[in-house]
Amino acid sequence: MPTASAQRFQKIVVIGGGAWGTALALTAARAGRSVTLWARDQSLITEMRSRNQNSRYLPGITFDEDLTFTDRLSDCSKADAILLVTPAQTTRDILRVLQNEAKLTVPVVLCAKGIERGTGQMLSEVLKEEARQAEAAVLSGPSFADDVARGLPTAVTIAAETDATAQGLSQALAAPAFRPYASTDVIGAQIGGALKNVLAIACGAVVGRKLGASAQAALTARGFAELTRLAQALGARHETLTGLSGLGDLVLTCSSTQSRNFSFGLKLGKGLLASDLKASGGKLAEGAHSARIAVTLGDRLNVDLPICKIVARMVEEDLPIEEAITALMTRPLKSETPPA
Amino acid sequence: MPTASAQRFQKIVVIGGGAWGTALALTAARAGRSVTLWARDQSLITEMRSRNQNSRYLPGITFDEDLTFTDRLSDCSKADAILLVTPAQTTRDILRVLQNEAKLTVPVVLCAKGIERGTGQMLSEVLKEEARQAEAAVLSGPSFADDVARGLPTAVTIAAETDATAQGLSQALAAPAFRPYASTDVIGAQIGGALKNVLAIACGAVVGRKLGASAQAALTARGFAELTRLAQALGARHETLTGLSGLGDLVLTCSSTQSRNFSFGLKLGKGLLASDLKASGGKLAEGAHSARIAVTLGDRLNVDLPICKIVARMVEEDLPIEEAITALMTRPLKSETPPA
Repeated sequence: MPTASAQRFQKIVVIGGGAWGTALALTAARAGRSVTLWARDQSLITEMRSRNQNSRYLPGITFDEDLTFTDRLSDCSKADAILLVTPAQTTRDILRVLQNEAKLTVPVVLCAKGIERGTGQMLSEVLKEEARQAEAAVLSGPSFADDVARGLPTAVTIAAETDATAQGLSQALAAPAFRPYASTDVIGAQIGGALKNVLAIACGAVVGRKLGASAQAALTARGFAELTRLAQALGARHETLTGLSGLGDLVLTCSSTQSRNFSFGLKLGKGLLASDLKASGGKLAEGAHSARIAVTLGDRLNVDLPICKIVARMVEEDLPIEEAITALMTRPLKSETPPA
Repeated sequence: MPTASAQRFQKIVVIGGGAWGTALALTAARAGRSVTLWARDQSLITEMRSRNQNSRYLPGITFDEDLTFTDRLSDCSKADAILLVTPAQTTRDILRVLQNEAKLTVPVVLCAKGIERGTGQMLSEVLKEEARQAEAAVLSGPSFADDVARGLPTAVTIAAETDATAQGLSQALAAPAFRPYASTDVIGAQIGGALKNVLAIACGAVVGRKLGASAQAALTARGFAELTRLAQALGARHETLTGLSGLGDLVLTCSSTQSRNFSFGLKLGKGLLASDLKASGGKLAEGAHSARIAVTLGDRLNVDLPICKIVARMVEEDLPIEEAITALMTRPLKSETPPA
C-alpha cells in the first residue's frame, strides 16, 4: 500500500553498517523502499554484498532483502531521506563530510542516541548547525537491532520538524513488524535516548547488587521522573515522554541484559570498579560517557538529576558501590506530590 | 527516630495472613511499631506463633520480629491504624464484619489491589460506604512480598485523604529498607494496582509468544498510556501515575515471572487456553477477573481500554493467541500526539 506520502521517501540511504544501521536498512527494504547502506569498512561491505550477512554486528542473520551497499558518501545525494546511524559523538564530523559531499537538503533521520559532549547539544541541534537546509527527524523507541533484523514486532516514534515529513517517513518505513508512530516533537523524542543509558547503568548496579526486582522497578520509576524533569526544561511534550521513545525505551534498556549499559551496571553492582574496567581495555558503555554530559546539561537548565550524578561519580571517581546504592535507594522521605 | 506523627500510629493491626499481609506486618515491626497480625486460619496462627514462620505463603523466611497474632477481629478496636490486606473482592464483606466488631474510626490502609466486581468501585469507595468514619488510605507500589519480607529495599506510595495521615503513616511505617512516600491522591494511588495485573497478562502473552523484549517494552508503554487515560477520567493526579504506585508497579508486574499474572499470560502466549487452565482446576490470576471489570468501568467513563478488552476476550472467549497478538501489536498507524 504505497501511499503518495510514502513514495516521497522511496530512496533511502542508511549511513552506518553497525547492528542498528543494518537492521534499519533491512526493515526499510521490507517496507518496500529502495535502500542503499553505507559503511566505512570495505570488508564489511564485501561480506554483506557477497554473503548477505553482517556477521560482525548481526551474527546469525542472513539477509533476504535486496540492498545496495556503498562506501561513497556522495551516493547520499540521490536519497529522498537519509538515516544517520553512526555513533552519537561522531554526528558532527560525519555531517560535515556529508554536507561537503552531498549538500544535505533532504530530511536527515537521526537514529543514534546521545547528547554531544562538549556542547551539551541534542543531535538535532548539531544537525541544524551543520546542515541548515536539512529537515531534522528522529527515530527512537524500544528496539533492539537484533529484534528488528529478525522481524520481531517493534514500534518506534518518528519525529520530524513538520507533520508532513513525520507522517511520510512513518508510512515509508512501516512494515508489518515495524510500526512507526509520527510525532513533531523532535526534542522530546531525543530525551529518552539521551538519558536511558545512564539510568540503565544505575538499574544494572541495583540488580548486580541483588537488591531484587522491587528495587529495580522503584529506580526505573524514579529514573523516569528524572528524565521528565529534564525534558520539561527542554520544552518536550508530555505524551512523547510517556510514549515509545521515552518510557518504552527506558523500560527496555533498564530491564534487559541485552543492553550493554545495563550489563555494565551489573558489573559495577558486583563490585568491579569503572577504572578497572577501563584499564582492562574494555570499551565503556555509552551511558558511562553521557552521565556527565547529562549532569552538565541539567546544571545549565537548573534541573537536578540525582541518579545521573551518582552514575557519573561511579564512572569517574570509582564511588564505592555500597555508597552508590545507599544514595540511589534511600533518599530522604518526602512526598510524591511536588510542592505546589 | 520516632517522631510525633509516627507515634500517632504506634499500634498497627494487619488484617490478612497471606504473603503480603505477613510481609507488611514484618516491616511495620522493623519500623518500631507494635504490630498485631490477624489471620483467619488457626493453624497458620499456630505456626507463626510457635515457629516464627509462615511456610505456606512465605516459605524459607524466619521472623526475628516481635509480632502478636490473633484470630479475633475485635482486636482491631485497639489499633491506631488498620492495614487491610485481604483479597480485593472480599473487601466489602470484611469491612462489614470489622465495622460490627470494632467500629472503625481509625485510618484503614487498603493494601489489596483491584476494582470491586459488580459495582466497579475502587476499594476506597467501598470503604467510605461501609465505614464512613474511617479515613481511607492506600499503600501501593512495586513491592513483591518476598522482597519486603527479606528486607530488600522497597519504595511505595502511601496515600491518605489528609496530608497529616499520609505523612504520619509514612513515617510510622518507614524502615531502613522500606521507604513510603506520602501522597493525598487516594484514587490515583489505586489505578496502577487496578490495571497492572491485566496489562501484565498481555505482556506475558507477548513474551510467551517469543516476540522479543522490544515488543514487550512497546506494550508496557502502551499499557501505561491506557492506565493514564482511565486515571485521568477518574481525576487522578499525573505525578501519582508516573510514580511508584503507577509506573513503578506496572514495570515490576509486566517484567517479572515472579508475578502470577505475567506467568498466566506466558501460558496463554504459549497457546494454552484460559478455559483449559480453568478446567484443570488452577486458580485464575487476579488480572483475568479484573480485565472485564476494567473494561466495564472504562465504558462507563467513556475511556477506550483496548489492551484490557483483548485480555478480557482471551479469558472469557478463548480468543486465539494469534488473533490476540495481532490486535495487541499492530494497531493502525497513527500519531503519538493525540489530536488537539
